[in-house]
Amino acid sequence: MSSVGGMAITDKVRFGILGCAKIARQVARAISLSEECELHAVGSRSLEKAVSFVLDNGLPASVRIYGSYEAVLDDPEVDAAYIPLPTTLHMEIAVLAAKRKKHVLLEKPVALNIGELDRILEACRANGVQFMDGTMWMHHPRTAKMKEALLDVSRFGQLKLIHSFISYNAGPEFLENDIRVKPDLDALGALGDIGWYCIRSILWAVNYQLPNKVVAMHEPVYNDAGVILSAGASLYWSDGKVATFHCSFLNHMAFEVTAFGTTGIIRVSDIITPFQDKYATFYSSSVSDFAEVEPGQWAPAPKEHRVDADVPQEVVMVSEFARLVSGINTRVSKPDEEWVNISRKTQLVLDAVKDSLMKNYQSVEIIE
Amino acid sequence: MSSVGGMAITDKVRFGILGCAKIARQVARAISLSEECELHAVGSRSLEKAVSFVLDNGLPASVRIYGSYEAVLDDPEVDAAYIPLPTTLHMEIAVLAAKRKKHVLLEKPVALNIGELDRILEACRANGVQFMDGTMWMHHPRTAKMKEALLDVSRFGQLKLIHSFISYNAGPEFLENDIRVKPDLDALGALGDIGWYCIRSILWAVNYQLPNKVVAMHEPVYNDAGVILSAGASLYWSDGKVATFHCSFLNHMAFEVTAFGTTGIIRVSDIITPFQDKYATFYSSSVSDFAEVEPGQWAPAPKEHRVDADVPQEVVMVSEFARLVSGINTRVSKPDEEWVNISRKTQLVLDAVKDSLMKNYQSVEIIE
Repeated sequence: MSSVGGMAITDKVRFGILGCAKIARQVARAISLSEECELHAVGSRSLEKAVSFVLDNGLPASVRIYGSYEAVLDDPEVDAAYIPLPTTLHMEIAVLAAKRKKHVLLEKPVALNIGELDRILEACRANGVQFMDGTMWMHHPRTAKMKEALLDVSRFGQLKLIHSFISYNAGPEFLENDIRVKPDLDALGALGDIGWYCIRSILWAVNYQLPNKVVAMHEPVYNDAGVILSAGASLYWSDGKVATFHCSFLNHMAFEVTAFGTTGIIRVSDIITPFQDKYATFYSSSVSDFAEVEPGQWAPAPKEHRVDADVPQEVVMVSEFARLVSGINTRVSKPDEEWVNISRKTQLVLDAVKDSLMKNYQSVEIIE
Repeated sequence: MSSVGGMAITDKVRFGILGCAKIARQVARAISLSEECELHAVGSRSLEKAVSFVLDNGLPASVRIYGSYEAVLDDPEVDAAYIPLPTTLHMEIAVLAAKRKKHVLLEKPVALNIGELDRILEACRANGVQFMDGTMWMHHPRTAKMKEALLDVSRFGQLKLIHSFISYNAGPEFLENDIRVKPDLDALGALGDIGWYCIRSILWAVNYQLPNKVVAMHEPVYNDAGVILSAGASLYWSDGKVATFHCSFLNHMAFEVTAFGTTGIIRVSDIITPFQDKYATFYSSSVSDFAEVEPGQWAPAPKEHRVDADVPQEVVMVSEFARLVSGINTRVSKPDEEWVNISRKTQLVLDAVKDSLMKNYQSVEIIE
């Protein structure tokens, strides 16, 4: 095994996980399942919590357990930090991770605002480490297939309109106690937790072209502490494309994205977490019409597309991240800027929605 | 056959069709297929057009052909007028029909504004005739089944959010020549033609409770003559319900309505014209959840519901209208006010959207 720049070419990327959130269990499992990754350490502000996390999730005895986030970052054998902490802590901890030369896989929402995110991204850039956010569905093979369908001009035409409606009924316990409804922990509430996915899916559909204006929907729902439980917005592009989204902790689970082109539509109903584990589906309709006088079938009929998934999307995510990290650590490549841009644009739109909400639903321009 | 009030109890309702629009062919066929209806007369401003209409559609030789709308309304054997004329003519002709004691089945959009509609409704009321608009999907048996699903509190919970997105790619010929893009004929454009369905589907979902405010989306598309080709709006109720809609002549065909409750969602993708002729489907998901750590199927999985349709929805529509007419003509019942209220509320919301568009997307209150 040859060693370049301190890392053997065939070495697995060694992850340290900072924090023991529910989502950390899922990603810990993904790291274990990925051939490119190894779970090296887990840290929490409470050593006891970190121990429980390792034991409860049946993680290998080799995993190092730390009683602070800093200790994980001080471990020279940790290559990459996965950070599923409350959003309020992201800037401090992600910047620290970058300074310790750890590659940063940061849970979404990545920051409270673009100012904080830019400090994180600057630290990653200055220290030559990879940045990626934890938007898992981006890595599902279905997502690439849907993009192919969107780009098929003969079947889909020009993209005109996107709607993304993502919700889950969080329930009383969550609405009372979850960090995602606490202003000092995840002040962006539903906008950060699932509005993030809405915005990302819209930007994904338009190839990350920023809208030039954003208008929040009226009547958002806040909790008593002022955290968003339900909100929506419309987004406008200078070429006439329009998008709307709505996110809510108060409605039944729905993870819908529909893209309308001039000659086709594409819809996915389970964007965040597929209905099935071994495959995922999406629907399209293309150049359909129906008989007006003699009623009959739409022709051609809308179609269901099935895309197989060998492993869960979070495994693909950590593997892709690990490959970027390996490339950097072996000096084959530099940090990939595309993931940085995608996170940044998502944050810019999210900030604009928040701004429009605070400005009484006025139109807010996005300036990059 | 006993005769009451000039009409035999078992008599079919005799329709006169005013105008030879494409939709008139569909309704002429529906009248022929309905056991409660008989096509008695067809009139156009051009006798030649009316003759062609009868011949081209293989209508019975018994159908009387008139060279003016007034002549149809002057025929004492016509019980009911079906009026598929351009919206601009609705007020004049529908009022005249009512004055001639003809029951009025009026194509949508029913009027250019609530003022015109109220004159029509007042004439119907004063003359004791039935009014109904031509929103066919209201009469499909699927619509009643979806309403049952919406009202199933145990599976759907409380209704919170409705989205309706209706479009078709009208194409260059239509966008140049169709009456629906002509300011002197159908000045409401896409808002009247398909926005009408969006608004109706939303009102249908909320049991015709009017929203208290309406906010148009930015960036509507108008043609050179100022007719709406694409527009959208959000609607707000005092109890927190929210709806959005978007209608367009410029996107691929999509007839989507999705209703989100606290514990379920219901979606229909072909609300105006079902994909199939013998049955129609809708989807629901209820109290679903997914495993976060061990990915797997959503449970329970979303369900497809199938509702059989013995006859096309327009046949059900004319039959239902004919039963109301028969009830009135045989003095068994009075004109049904529910259809009047439903049309009126749809028009009120439509007017508010137009008002918000003209007021630069400001919030517009709806006052009944």
